[in-house]
Amino acid sequence: MSQANQHDSIRPIQWVDDQLLLLDQRELPGKETYLVIQDVDGVYNAIHSMVVRGAPAIGITAAYGVVFSARAHFARQPATWLKNVEHDVQRLRGARPTAVNLDWALNKMLSLARKLNSNPVVELLARAHNIRNEDIQNNKRMGDIGAEFILPSSLVLTHCNAGALATGGYGTALGVIRSAFTKGRVKNVFACETRPWLQGARLTAWELAKEKIRVTLLADGAASHLLKTVEISWVIVGADRVAANGDVANKIGTYGLAVLAKYHNVKVMVVAPTSTIDICSSNGGEISLESRGPEELFTIDGRRVAATGARAWNPIFDITPAALVDVLVTEKGAIYKPTIDSIAELVNEALLS
Amino acid sequence: MSQANQHDSIRPIQWVDDQLLLLDQRELPGKETYLVIQDVDGVYNAIHSMVVRGAPAIGITAAYGVVFSARAHFARQPATWLKNVEHDVQRLRGARPTAVNLDWALNKMLSLARKLNSNPVVELLARAHNIRNEDIQNNKRMGDIGAEFILPSSLVLTHCNAGALATGGYGTALGVIRSAFTKGRVKNVFACETRPWLQGARLTAWELAKEKIRVTLLADGAASHLLKTVEISWVIVGADRVAANGDVANKIGTYGLAVLAKYHNVKVMVVAPTSTIDICSSNGGEISLESRGPEELFTIDGRRVAATGARAWNPIFDITPAALVDVLVTEKGAIYKPTIDSIAELVNEALLS
Repeated sequence: MSQANQHDSIRPIQWVDDQLLLLDQRELPGKETYLVIQDVDGVYNAIHSMVVRGAPAIGITAAYGVVFSARAHFARQPATWLKNVEHDVQRLRGARPTAVNLDWALNKMLSLARKLNSNPVVELLARAHNIRNEDIQNNKRMGDIGAEFILPSSLVLTHCNAGALATGGYGTALGVIRSAFTKGRVKNVFACETRPWLQGARLTAWELAKEKIRVTLLADGAASHLLKTVEISWVIVGADRVAANGDVANKIGTYGLAVLAKYHNVKVMVVAPTSTIDICSSNGGEISLESRGPEELFTIDGRRVAATGARAWNPIFDITPAALVDVLVTEKGAIYKPTIDSIAELVNEALLS
Repeated sequence: MSQANQHDSIRPIQWVDDQLLLLDQRELPGKETYLVIQDVDGVYNAIHSMVVRGAPAIGITAAYGVVFSARAHFARQPATWLKNVEHDVQRLRGARPTAVNLDWALNKMLSLARKLNSNPVVELLARAHNIRNEDIQNNKRMGDIGAEFILPSSLVLTHCNAGALATGGYGTALGVIRSAFTKGRVKNVFACETRPWLQGARLTAWELAKEKIRVTLLADGAASHLLKTVEISWVIVGADRVAANGDVANKIGTYGLAVLAKYHNVKVMVVAPTSTIDICSSNGGEISLESRGPEELFTIDGRRVAATGARAWNPIFDITPAALVDVLVTEKGAIYKPTIDSIAELVNEALLS
């Protein structure tokens, strides 16, 4: 196994025997279980209930949902399958609100579906595979592009999980970290545990430890003390949606990290494929930010930790203004200090390619 | 019951039948259990294992530890009790490193002990009671002083637990909040859950909900989004030690909150009795900051949450530079923008009174 392969062993979304296998991220790190999904309802539920999470992974999973939808409806009503698929797509769009990759992938699938007359399953499946494979390729490309910004033996800080688990494989932020680690540019990764869902402690720690990349967890509240007392080179995060002006919607706490990074002269890198850029949202204020129920703060692992009688405020995404982003890395290249013009240029390039 | 009393019902440190009863804060909010302590070892362990925590509460508990020490040693060896007490005091100083109230209370007890010739227990016990009662009085005074800075119907944000549970009663930061709430100046308290020990979720939520003060929990990482999107008037916190220049050692995350508050033009109030001011530490860099083991990040409530193979960085205090503190509230008055001179003045006043 080559050194690069050692750090690229995780594929959370797999198509096997005409079924979708999803690594159940709710169960990690305790159990490594693949859920078998066979229909569009299963896909909707998997996205909605966070069996799969992370913007690119949500998009890929939804693409397979369209395959299931077409397979079922074409078998039942070959004359009107498309209408029913369009209905399912509409439903899938609502499975989670913030990740724009969901719409992006569904649009890609739908535009192909609308061109098909005979049995659509083979071609739709090929496109879903293509979305997944292209995602992995893009992540590797972004990994190499982003790694160029990192000096040898750096310490980096990441938040949430923008890794193999959040994508088809390899990851966005963790793709850059994988690439940089392989090249000796990252010595140690600090990972915020990322309450309330603990993606850092459960997922990022799991995938980095599994692939022998040195990772150190910290409480989210400790990040400021880390930035002050330890020489961190970069804060590297993914994105759930990037607005046309470069504002970034990402896991709650990203905005605070970016402010704190700026305060300590630490640079912020956002790593996201162009499929995460939403040129229809002119700025972060137009992005719908998901909030979840209070239970995620009241309980951990099903057990009550918080006092009764309190309420909870649980927004799970926030907006980091473009001004706090030093570098935006996409598969089409990196932008230093992203602006509406430089972002539009990248997106056009992606559309033309 | 008067309105004020409704918000002041919690006494975590009680002396009953010549024994010390400590509300076991490790068990809150699930169980409200008082541990019965009868000797100096019990006091050491209770402080060390965080049955009792919070700078003033640690000091008060240690004072009762000196009573136990004197009682035991005087009974056994009336001629040499003082020497043995001094030995126990030395040990108690090491039970936790950061809270200076521990040294402060032990010094108060020791200076009295050294003046006593006959059976010292009655007088030492009276002094321990006095330390506790004065703490509660000081908290009420600070509550009223701090509340003056808060406009009617404000929303405030607090971190960790600087409440009745962290003191003899009433609390420092939560004392100000209690007073301001009673006067209609605080409409709602936002409380960071405060990983890793979840003092916010477990303790602050418990004591505020118990006393019918509206409290809303949030993940530590969500504080930046709160400060950006909700009109918060004040960040109000306690302190474990305040250096001569006004730098504040407090629960990990306080520093980050202060930076974020500054960024959003929200004011920061630190509430601490003069016993928390350590004029021997000229600045925050001289304060010993406790770090704890990785288990607090790896497990919650005894159950593993983090992936194996990761390491953890778990500093539990940080330093907020004086420049980020807008108001320091003590029982001797409040200082706007504390400086070495204004702090020295307050401390001198406290020494003379």
